[in-house]
Amino acid sequence: MKAIPSISELSPRLRSREISPVEITRGCLERIEELNPALNAFITVTADSALAEARTAEAEIGRGHWRGPLHGIPIALKDLIDTAGVRTTSGSALHEARIPREDAEVVRRLRNAGAVIVGKNNLHEFAYGGSSLISYFGDMHNPWDQGRITGGSSGGSAAAVAAGLAYAAIGTDTAGSIREPAALCGCVGLKATYGRVPSRGVIPLSSSLDHVGPLARSVADAAIVLQAIAGFDVSDLTTAEVPVMDYVSAAQESPRGLRVGIPREYFFDQLDAEVASAMEHAVNGIRTMVAQVQEVRLEVPTDRTLQLAESYACHAEQAAKTPERYQPETLRRIRTGQNVTAAEYIKRRRELDEARRNIRETFAGVDLLITPATPMPAPAIAELRASPDALRPAELKLLRNTRPFNVWGLPAISVPCGFTQGGLPIGLQIAGPHWREDLVLRLAHAYEQATAWHKRECACS
Amino acid sequence: MKAIPSISELSPRLRSREISPVEITRGCLERIEELNPALNAFITVTADSALAEARTAEAEIGRGHWRGPLHGIPIALKDLIDTAGVRTTSGSALHEARIPREDAEVVRRLRNAGAVIVGKNNLHEFAYGGSSLISYFGDMHNPWDQGRITGGSSGGSAAAVAAGLAYAAIGTDTAGSIREPAALCGCVGLKATYGRVPSRGVIPLSSSLDHVGPLARSVADAAIVLQAIAGFDVSDLTTAEVPVMDYVSAAQESPRGLRVGIPREYFFDQLDAEVASAMEHAVNGIRTMVAQVQEVRLEVPTDRTLQLAESYACHAEQAAKTPERYQPETLRRIRTGQNVTAAEYIKRRRELDEARRNIRETFAGVDLLITPATPMPAPAIAELRASPDALRPAELKLLRNTRPFNVWGLPAISVPCGFTQGGLPIGLQIAGPHWREDLVLRLAHAYEQATAWHKRECACS
Repeated sequence: MKAIPSISELSPRLRSREISPVEITRGCLERIEELNPALNAFITVTADSALAEARTAEAEIGRGHWRGPLHGIPIALKDLIDTAGVRTTSGSALHEARIPREDAEVVRRLRNAGAVIVGKNNLHEFAYGGSSLISYFGDMHNPWDQGRITGGSSGGSAAAVAAGLAYAAIGTDTAGSIREPAALCGCVGLKATYGRVPSRGVIPLSSSLDHVGPLARSVADAAIVLQAIAGFDVSDLTTAEVPVMDYVSAAQESPRGLRVGIPREYFFDQLDAEVASAMEHAVNGIRTMVAQVQEVRLEVPTDRTLQLAESYACHAEQAAKTPERYQPETLRRIRTGQNVTAAEYIKRRRELDEARRNIRETFAGVDLLITPATPMPAPAIAELRASPDALRPAELKLLRNTRPFNVWGLPAISVPCGFTQGGLPIGLQIAGPHWREDLVLRLAHAYEQATAWHKRECACS
Repeated sequence: MKAIPSISELSPRLRSREISPVEITRGCLERIEELNPALNAFITVTADSALAEARTAEAEIGRGHWRGPLHGIPIALKDLIDTAGVRTTSGSALHEARIPREDAEVVRRLRNAGAVIVGKNNLHEFAYGGSSLISYFGDMHNPWDQGRITGGSSGGSAAAVAAGLAYAAIGTDTAGSIREPAALCGCVGLKATYGRVPSRGVIPLSSSLDHVGPLARSVADAAIVLQAIAGFDVSDLTTAEVPVMDYVSAAQESPRGLRVGIPREYFFDQLDAEVASAMEHAVNGIRTMVAQVQEVRLEVPTDRTLQLAESYACHAEQAAKTPERYQPETLRRIRTGQNVTAAEYIKRRRELDEARRNIRETFAGVDLLITPATPMPAPAIAELRASPDALRPAELKLLRNTRPFNVWGLPAISVPCGFTQGGLPIGLQIAGPHWREDLVLRLAHAYEQATAWHKRECACS
């Protein structure tokens, strides 16, 4: 099947009515029908309402009412993002029949931008894991090798975007749940600054660390989606009243003046040989594109107590009431947070505040940080199922490079930076100072344009 | 002894060199020498440095360098506010010899405004109580009746200001610890909006509820001190980047257009007859001064779990290490928070956020709220010592009307509104919307000017 174009390629042609939103929405629905049985990337496909929305977009564009680059573009949503009248399951039996009355704030913003919602993506149950091997709605499969995991928790979203079942998707990221599946599935995943995108109407996992953000087929497309969903929400205490930039234009600017820091300690530990080699290539490439590349040392926060406590707090009441409606492994994970005391939690929350403050000093010396997004490519599903003890350590390893950026609250992106001999994608993580998504996008876009990794298509699409 | 004038009366005379900062500082030091043995309002008197600071102020004013209305004015600090090189005890044996290296941010701001620091006020140990009957440095005594408590925890500060040992003082307020002793000692106590005044360098008790603010001899003086200490502090995560108003001018404006709400339910329960009667007089007086007085209903937050947990978190490590260095009752209070789980804490923190958001709706209908500051005047020390079970319930009752405003994070002031037959002061609490200290000061000042309560002097001064 022929590759689908990017949003930035498609959007001018939609505007000029060379192609119709209905046509491209039908294209997505057909690919979903063909490929979803194997990938299991969608829990719910909203074919009828998507076509209706596409027809509305077509009519609006037809009469010259152009809403912007997302107008008429099919987008998918991780199924813990509320959609009015469409069930939102969190990948769990518990919410199997849960139908929200209101759209999440990001959905409201997407609709306002004219996007067409094609469906709800499968995910790791309640976003509590990095493999997408725990879901009431079944395993998700990597489009590059269906015997491999997608990563997670936004596994269905990453698979859908990589396989062209949607032009972009909205995921959530508490420890890497956007960037890690994006890396493993060979697409772009962006987590903006903590507080940049509203999370109102999104099922929480750990409210100090949760981020909502886009998965896309290119950096420019990620910028287009971020532009639509970023910004203060008066009813969302986690968002901040910091002005939104023109991310779409910023992504096009030259990275020539930028200083890039490489934190080898910790972030380059435990790398598979092929990831290490791809990273050296990426570093050498970036060295020719920017003002300066230098090694930096960071104090890396690795304690997980805060997340354990907050995730337990989210689920404690329900898990006590109907434990049988959770997957057993999810229940086990939730319960690891049950013995955290308030005093311990308060201490960890203070450490988080300090880490967010202290990391600012790093950006006196450099503008951006680059690391491998994950230390290894997507593991085989069979391998992680080989023993009951195999899954959790593999997930924690897969998330070890992304998690610190949730603690710091820094904007961070994963972009494709190579493939293994076996054809599995490898991701490069680029992170910047608080509220400087523009810098992150600038280097990510320049790197992407200087390489061809994002142009490679998986066998299935 | 003749009453000392207010800062707003004194300040023009200092500026015109009619009187000297050295002279008025000497006056305070003499009154401290005479009255402090009975009141026990100071732990440390910084006579030498105060005189040196006064001489510097005199020299600056002499050469025409006028820093503003606090220039050359003797101010006292609750002894949990850090002062570089001057011990800061928190009223505890634990900190008996603790000498901070840096001034708290509010002290830095006061010095910058030209204030003279005359000493450090005694307080309820670690600010954990409303009576000031628990301090390693002994009981504080009410200047209006030395057999009565000052209230607390800023008991020494309230006594010092009421008796004219300082022109104003800085206290802290987690459940009423500025407003309640101000009410019981017949002075003005102001807690601004949560996040309005930096708490960096102030020993915390419960960081979600702690507020730093002035105690003063008049509303205008409270506005002058607030003006000097209010505003964003980049190193203090609890402060907000909201512009500071001209509080001093705002306090002078007419209250004529204001709509005042009276939340009788809860806040007018449990009132002593004399407090109830003083309140009715105050309400009738205010009715003639404003556009409208109407009853309002509020959902009043009364749960103390959050404070218990945060206070335990502050002290847990130290209390485990050297329990014998705490007063036994303080230790008992600290330990009441030890069994709070992280999940329970997170739930209560969320309720706090919701309460702070929901209270805004109240101010669609009214501009200000008025309540009694305390349901009763200062109890007798002997009565609270009569049984081991008498103290805590009395303290909780004394703080019941002030505490909700810490949860809501609203600006609130206590101003004198009458006296009992026995000559004990009664306080009126006025509260406003977030960041609208100007409205609070406006009504408080107008009420004060229309009455003569603040002009009455206690026997000792």
